[in-house]
Amino acid sequence: MEEALNEKATHHMNQELLIHSLQNEDIQMFREEFLKLHPYDQASFFKELDEETRERIYYYLSPEEMATLFENLEMDEGYQDVLAEMNPNYAAEMISKMYVDDAVDVLNELEKDQVVSYLTIMDEEAAQEIKDLLHYEEYTAGSIMTTDFVSISANQTVRSAMYILKKEAPKAETIYYIYVLDDDKRLAGVISLRDLIVNDDDTMISEITNDRIVSVSVGDDQEEVARKIKDYNFLALPVVDFQNHLLGIITVDDVMDVMEEEASDDYSKLAAVSDMDTIDRSPLYAAKKRLPWLIILLYLGMGTASLAARFEETLEKAAILGAFITLIAGMAGNTGTQALAVVVRGIATGDLEKESKLKLILREAGTGLITGTICGILVTITIFIWKGNLFLGILVGISIFCTLIVATIAGAFIPLAMHKFKIDPAVASGPFITTINDIISILIYFSIANMFLSFF
Amino acid sequence: MEEALNEKATHHMNQELLIHSLQNEDIQMFREEFLKLHPYDQASFFKELDEETRERIYYYLSPEEMATLFENLEMDEGYQDVLAEMNPNYAAEMISKMYVDDAVDVLNELEKDQVVSYLTIMDEEAAQEIKDLLHYEEYTAGSIMTTDFVSISANQTVRSAMYILKKEAPKAETIYYIYVLDDDKRLAGVISLRDLIVNDDDTMISEITNDRIVSVSVGDDQEEVARKIKDYNFLALPVVDFQNHLLGIITVDDVMDVMEEEASDDYSKLAAVSDMDTIDRSPLYAAKKRLPWLIILLYLGMGTASLAARFEETLEKAAILGAFITLIAGMAGNTGTQALAVVVRGIATGDLEKESKLKLILREAGTGLITGTICGILVTITIFIWKGNLFLGILVGISIFCTLIVATIAGAFIPLAMHKFKIDPAVASGPFITTINDIISILIYFSIANMFLSFF
Repeated sequence: MEEALNEKATHHMNQELLIHSLQNEDIQMFREEFLKLHPYDQASFFKELDEETRERIYYYLSPEEMATLFENLEMDEGYQDVLAEMNPNYAAEMISKMYVDDAVDVLNELEKDQVVSYLTIMDEEAAQEIKDLLHYEEYTAGSIMTTDFVSISANQTVRSAMYILKKEAPKAETIYYIYVLDDDKRLAGVISLRDLIVNDDDTMISEITNDRIVSVSVGDDQEEVARKIKDYNFLALPVVDFQNHLLGIITVDDVMDVMEEEASDDYSKLAAVSDMDTIDRSPLYAAKKRLPWLIILLYLGMGTASLAARFEETLEKAAILGAFITLIAGMAGNTGTQALAVVVRGIATGDLEKESKLKLILREAGTGLITGTICGILVTITIFIWKGNLFLGILVGISIFCTLIVATIAGAFIPLAMHKFKIDPAVASGPFITTINDIISILIYFSIANMFLSFF
Repeated sequence: MEEALNEKATHHMNQELLIHSLQNEDIQMFREEFLKLHPYDQASFFKELDEETRERIYYYLSPEEMATLFENLEMDEGYQDVLAEMNPNYAAEMISKMYVDDAVDVLNELEKDQVVSYLTIMDEEAAQEIKDLLHYEEYTAGSIMTTDFVSISANQTVRSAMYILKKEAPKAETIYYIYVLDDDKRLAGVISLRDLIVNDDDTMISEITNDRIVSVSVGDDQEEVARKIKDYNFLALPVVDFQNHLLGIITVDDVMDVMEEEASDDYSKLAAVSDMDTIDRSPLYAAKKRLPWLIILLYLGMGTASLAARFEETLEKAAILGAFITLIAGMAGNTGTQALAVVVRGIATGDLEKESKLKLILREAGTGLITGTICGILVTITIFIWKGNLFLGILVGISIFCTLIVATIAGAFIPLAMHKFKIDPAVASGPFITTINDIISILIYFSIANMFLSFF
């Protein structure tokens, strides 16, 4: 949790000055202006530079200064390239000076042998700290926690706790929560800096420790962590193993990144785009990300078309039926996506945990019954007025009615089933649901149409 | 920013004890167990009770204790009902004891005359503080900020700053950032509690104040606030007027709620469900939220159907064409939604701000060209092999090719245009795009089909 509090107001002026000083190789002026910036602004500036200029910066800044910048550098896949520009010793030292959770984020993007080589050059203690964190599985609490926290034992005074805090402040990610450990290094409680401040120096820590603390297990999903921090309004959450040993902490800033990541993820899956973290760089890059989905959907769509082709005879007898295929399939897709979205969000926010699944499905069936009835009646009346054909109206109306009920249930059932089988319900359910519902709707539509055929 | 750090581990046992004590009207036991809980857990427990039991709780807890619970109570529209259960004096006092931003959140859900009546009963100072915040427009920085912050002037020592902090700690939302004001109450800088802790007691505040601070204007969008807090990893952000007077602060916990709200909002709009904050309570409630969209989409779909009906003659001549309508319309919808999602997320995360809009559209056109070419070729070959009909394959292939290009451009262009005209691009663009693309795809498909008709 970085805390220098700088400003962007004089941003433009400053940027020119920085570029000017870089061009003139004026180290002193560059350092003076650059180090005034908030690390996030340093990183934003750095990101826009070309390779040659970036390489100059590695000579102007110490590995430690570069580490602060790097902690704030948001790149998807570019770390490898940037690190390759640096002298390996410089890179290794920089990584060792980063907050350990950020260092792990960066190393996770690299090839395994490269990670090993950096860890070998690096200061042993730092390397060990990183190694301990590297083996946690992605998306778990362990993978986003840091070991840079402040802990104390219960049998001391506020005064001595403040002393420890001052000493550890430069290295710790947050000093606002201090974790109290028992003799076996088990998590016994937590105390906030606020508590320390408002109590007398001679108060015993044990008297003011809060021993009913909320923690997460190291293997818990990162979404679970985000939810807890959000619900309880914490600044950090302790991570423990199954014996309640304190392994690390997760701070609110890391959780915000998780929240954004997960929201983008759910959103992009609903839209059938994989991995939509950044604006696409080139048409080829964008096409590469979207084509897999489009090709799958293309073949699923051809499956639907082959099903529809079986009703060619029906279409030959009453071509007007063809005009309503998109309407019915579209409505099935719409209502299915609505039900899906409600369920996927419900799973994501945890609102669904307490609910009976059967009750949910029944409720969705009820919803489909209501929306189906109303839309069915509306469409029947509208087609009757518009085309003067009551049978066509009734045919389309009944199809809409049946389709909406079935599609709504399918939209709720499929993500629930996926969740049950530990598949991320957001994965392919957007397009998947739509295709299932296309098929359902076409079957319903043409089956009913065949019954009505004699009226045309 | 609430900071009691309790636990949920003994949650179930505790819950039974609480219900037991409520049933036996054992005030003492209830209070003892209940007040041990984290306010979030208090609120979760409270939410599940029936009205009669809730009313009992109002007698067991003081307005101040109830205020802490209420700050953690997440309800969409239910505040009005819950407040109506309380004695008005109790309710007014409770509201006055809440953090002012949370009080404003609650009051914003009520009828105007009810708000006035509570403010009239309430302690005058608290009422004034609330009134000052009530007039800010929804979704602005002003509407989510709090005035419960700590400020000091620059010409004092760390020791006296710590003294002020201790005094203000019980009321302030955060004591981790202290804002430094000049003689005209203008924001001059900021200092973190971490800075105070690590410096000597005799250090002058002016020496350690950070005067390059990041702030937001009171009228700024709440998304902008969330982005800044997230990018800079702040715990709070000061809100100023155009003369740089400090009006309030926004803390990270409020911003997390904003992030979740905005993410849910974007997601639900893509799925054409309005207002998807909670799992729907009843089929009728769900149907009421989804029907408006479904009915709009129904009539848009009928518009598309009436367009398709114009090609009835074409369908009569070659009924097999009807089978591919869903495929082509579906692919147009898919690619349009992909482009839309990328642009909407880009606008939401601010990544798009720096980019040229024309470049973006051209890039999307390029993407459509690539995906269109590949999908077009695939579909032509597949249909040729499957149906043995090269002309049908070429017809569908060319249609897919043209459709994908146009639909991709439309998917990017429409949200950009909406953003330009200050309409939230997420509003109706999901279904809107799909319908536009249905129409485009049907026009393209049948126009090309008519050219090929002599081959069937």
